[in-house]
Amino acid sequence: MELGMVGLGRMGANMAQRLAQGGHTVSGFDPSPEARQRVAAQGITPADSLQALVAGLSAPRVVWLMVPAGKIVDDTLDTLLPLLAKGDIVIDGGNSFYQDTLRRAQRLQEAGLHYVDCGTSGGVWGLTEGYSMMVGGADDALALLKPIFETLAPSPTTGWGHVGPTGAGHFTKMVHNGVEYGMMQAYAEGFAILERKADFKLDLHQVAQIWQTGSVVRSWLLDLTADALKQNPTMAGIAPYVEDSGEGRWTAKEALDLDVSAPVITLSLLERLRSREKDSFADKLLAAMRNGFGGHRITKE
Amino acid sequence: MELGMVGLGRMGANMAQRLAQGGHTVSGFDPSPEARQRVAAQGITPADSLQALVAGLSAPRVVWLMVPAGKIVDDTLDTLLPLLAKGDIVIDGGNSFYQDTLRRAQRLQEAGLHYVDCGTSGGVWGLTEGYSMMVGGADDALALLKPIFETLAPSPTTGWGHVGPTGAGHFTKMVHNGVEYGMMQAYAEGFAILERKADFKLDLHQVAQIWQTGSVVRSWLLDLTADALKQNPTMAGIAPYVEDSGEGRWTAKEALDLDVSAPVITLSLLERLRSREKDSFADKLLAAMRNGFGGHRITKE
Amino acid sequence: MELGMVGLGRMGANMAQRLAQGGHTVSGFDPSPEARQRVAAQGITPADSLQALVAGLSAPRVVWLMVPAGKIVDDTLDTLLPLLAKGDIVIDGGNSFYQDTLRRAQRLQEAGLHYVDCGTSGGVWGLTEGYSMMVGGADDALALLKPIFETLAPSPTTGWGHVGPTGAGHFTKMVHNGVEYGMMQAYAEGFAILERKADFKLDLHQVAQIWQTGSVVRSWLLDLTADALKQNPTMAGIAPYVEDSGEGRWTAKEALDLDVSAPVITLSLLERLRSREKDSFADKLLAAMRNGFGGHRITKE
Amino acid sequence: MELGMVGLGRMGANMAQRLAQGGHTVSGFDPSPEARQRVAAQGITPADSLQALVAGLSAPRVVWLMVPAGKIVDDTLDTLLPLLAKGDIVIDGGNSFYQDTLRRAQRLQEAGLHYVDCGTSGGVWGLTEGYSMMVGGADDALALLKPIFETLAPSPTTGWGHVGPTGAGHFTKMVHNGVEYGMMQAYAEGFAILERKADFKLDLHQVAQIWQTGSVVRSWLLDLTADALKQNPTMAGIAPYVEDSGEGRWTAKEALDLDVSAPVITLSLLERLRSREKDSFADKLLAAMRNGFGGHRITKE
Repeated sequence: MELGMVGLGRMGANMAQRLAQGGHTVSGFDPSPEARQRVAAQGITPADSLQALVAGLSAPRVVWLMVPAGKIVDDTLDTLLPLLAKGDIVIDGGNSFYQDTLRRAQRLQEAGLHYVDCGTSGGVWGLTEGYSMMVGGADDALALLKPIFETLAPSPTTGWGHVGPTGAGHFTKMVHNGVEYGMMQAYAEGFAILERKADFKLDLHQVAQIWQTGSVVRSWLLDLTADALKQNPTMAGIAPYVEDSGEGRWTAKEALDLDVSAPVITLSLLERLRSREKDSFADKLLAAMRNGFGGHRITKE
Repeated sequence: MELGMVGLGRMGANMAQRLAQGGHTVSGFDPSPEARQRVAAQGITPADSLQALVAGLSAPRVVWLMVPAGKIVDDTLDTLLPLLAKGDIVIDGGNSFYQDTLRRAQRLQEAGLHYVDCGTSGGVWGLTEGYSMMVGGADDALALLKPIFETLAPSPTTGWGHVGPTGAGHFTKMVHNGVEYGMMQAYAEGFAILERKADFKLDLHQVAQIWQTGSVVRSWLLDLTADALKQNPTMAGIAPYVEDSGEGRWTAKEALDLDVSAPVITLSLLERLRSREKDSFADKLLAAMRNGFGGHRITKE
Repeated sequence: MELGMVGLGRMGANMAQRLAQGGHTVSGFDPSPEARQRVAAQGITPADSLQALVAGLSAPRVVWLMVPAGKIVDDTLDTLLPLLAKGDIVIDGGNSFYQDTLRRAQRLQEAGLHYVDCGTSGGVWGLTEGYSMMVGGADDALALLKPIFETLAPSPTTGWGHVGPTGAGHFTKMVHNGVEYGMMQAYAEGFAILERKADFKLDLHQVAQIWQTGSVVRSWLLDLTADALKQNPTMAGIAPYVEDSGEGRWTAKEALDLDVSAPVITLSLLERLRSREKDSFADKLLAAMRNGFGGHRITKE
Repeated sequence: MELGMVGLGRMGANMAQRLAQGGHTVSGFDPSPEARQRVAAQGITPADSLQALVAGLSAPRVVWLMVPAGKIVDDTLDTLLPLLAKGDIVIDGGNSFYQDTLRRAQRLQEAGLHYVDCGTSGGVWGLTEGYSMMVGGADDALALLKPIFETLAPSPTTGWGHVGPTGAGHFTKMVHNGVEYGMMQAYAEGFAILERKADFKLDLHQVAQIWQTGSVVRSWLLDLTADALKQNPTMAGIAPYVEDSGEGRWTAKEALDLDVSAPVITLSLLERLRSREKDSFADKLLAAMRNGFGGHRITKE
């Protein structure tokens, strides 16, 4: 079927390419001319503007947004909405906060448009392995979009699903990322303990490799960890500095709002904040307090 | 090669069976006559006593202990040691605490015997899928035992390894289990958040199934979780009561001893303790304090 | 000076009484006739309506809101605003979320009114001991209100302060309560450990009493804890059920928004959520997982 | 009464001085001649050796150990034991681990000696304010020692108590310190949040001062914190590096052994470990994993 992809960064370009390879008619827009040129070589029709992109699609039009979460989604919708007509479908395939999605869906519904949210996992590996997709939206929109999800997924029947009404897709993806934070932190702590146990001189790559087959902790994240430890067993040159990209803190806050105690997901996030805190006021104050009541030595900066 | 298995519970019996199927000559002892009878049907020679087991092996004898961690290991060694001769090998395949292993290895070394520790993962699935094994011990003992590990592992070259000196195997397995606690808790929290979000009416089994293919959080534990959610989507009839079997708390304490901050592994353990605490004194005292300073209502039992 | 108190629950009535005792001219409104009658006996002029309350004050009018955080504050402002004139001052002495305060201040400022936020600690003890007050607002409003704060505080110069612009008072009070959560949980855990150590048969009230004098952990909360343990050493009849009233979760979320890792404050809140979770889905799923990979027994409900 | 103090560091010297000022006959030994000279000026009889110290005491002798926890206690007992006679009393006033105390008490009991453990709080302030003391031991020994504790405590009846059999004193002090860790971390996090909220430009010393009177979080630790913030509002020149001195990790481990979930005390300890970890392997591995699955940028060292 026909689809217009908005946003041709790595994720958007790869998804467009997987769709084109799967026999779909894909056009694409990105403000960067280089990004447009890159996809042209892969069977995707580049459009110079959102207007041109929409003009090239036949009704009901399907537009897939693959842009960073936040204001850019709203700005893109501002431009898109006047161009679209009743019955058209906009899919947000990015990591938007599900409450933003609910708000946007309301806006599109008032214009007679469908808004579908697709939480997408798979990252840089999706082009070849397929994407895991949690989709929220109305039944009739989903019925129309089925061929697209069947092509993007690892197989037509696995790795994707219509999980609920609009918002449910991004909500599920948000929690997916929260779980991911917890798993990553669990592995990281485990390998840090192994690394610190100097008397056993453990080969961390070997341990990861053993765990990859037959063990209870085998996983795709462990496969990645094994690769990372193979390439760089001592993590040389890598700063102990861990970013977070939003979903983890949304999950932590959502858990609070739902009165669910989620200590491991929450602590995984706090550890990332902590990794970026090289000059902790709390720790300085603790050192000062210890000096105050016990005369304990303060380490000078 | 020839091996005597001590302990024919599910784990020991399955390992003996996998070895027998792999062409090894396996005898086995268990205090339970029923356990001995069961393995006899699977090509394993049952022995009525440790004495008989050892008498039936040719030197250098290889005895594999698959008994619960703790005093039983020491008791078994008390009986075994006088029966063994210089150059014989005892393997502890159970979940012993690595410091107990170091102590026992010292004792066996003084008697000229080898002590090899094998941290074994794979549980009830090992018979068919193979076991993941982290092995500690001396090089010459390991060289002799190689055919055994090659048969027990998922394949001769995957899922097992000689990770270091005696103790290193159980140490690595201990940390493996710590990581497992963290991963399990991460999944459990994630699904609890999804379950609590009533307005989306999410089908947790469907979500697990989507995540199983292509997602960043796919893993063997997730496969199990999907199975559990398929059989019992609401966890009906299951008490919110989570046991722990030692390795998690050893890992948490070891991390403290090594000055490694491991909040996620540690909190995963605390959550299990918490699940068994139905009458928390701390919570009662908190309720009493709130009443004291703010006049907040106390819920009566 | 002259002040109208809106909300004559325990907190509002006590504050009005302390002000009247301090020589101020205090009137008060509460929708409950009983509440109005109660304060009339304490030298406070009851008003039948907000209209009557405002009508009885001379300009610049000072109205102190002591109503529950949330919608009631906005509703009260809806009624109050048309009654007030340029230069009048509204003080919110409740536990409002500081971002609501910022929004409300904006609204009042547009009408030429001052909005002052006073985070108030001291609870049921404030009438006799004085209130600890963190005040946010404009300098000129604060200059006018100084006599009120000097009367409400433990002494004219202690226990209160103008901490910053509007919003800063409620922000500081919010963090105060976050710290309170952490301290309470620290004590609760400590006494729970002492209580569990059965072989020492410790008298928890005695321990609290020892700590009250000379120790590093002495505090007002410990005084309360000692009282609670004296009256009810075993916490008999008290359910292990701990409410939270908003400030803790605001603090936890604010810390995330500020990228500050605050694990102890956050975990203190999660423990309260946990205390109310008697049928944890997460724990049931963990039990089911353990059964899946290790054949571990599930406890039936 | 008569007492010999072993260890004339700051704590021991101050306690000896408070006892001498209270009318007791105090002698003291320390390997450092300077330490011995210092106390001589304060009415304490210095002894050149443990032998001389014991020789100068009349039976039943009372010897108070104020030496660092660990091997030094055992070494001191090795020397002392042959010098003492049946009925003599040794008090360990230091921060020994209570299980070491139980072991040592067993040894002394076999020699007919009493062993009394006194968990001592109050640090550098004890000389003037008195010490908070949690004492474990046999009733008859305690009856004899009562005058000593009445002098050391803030008053004869407050701040000290006989909490249980030998070991109970150090156990209670250990938990006291665990609670202290939690409280300190709660304050530290609170002030760190206040400090980070740049738009309110809060004066942290002012906030601490407000909280010191009338608030729910007032405490002696807060008084110290206010002092620290007065002297150094920005914590300039202080490294964010927090030591721990044993009791916190003993408490965390003991909670695990007792199956008590103590997340706040435990996390307070982990935060201290974390403060000393400037090159976290876990964080580096997390950064490498993020790069692996999402192509996220790694920060170079």
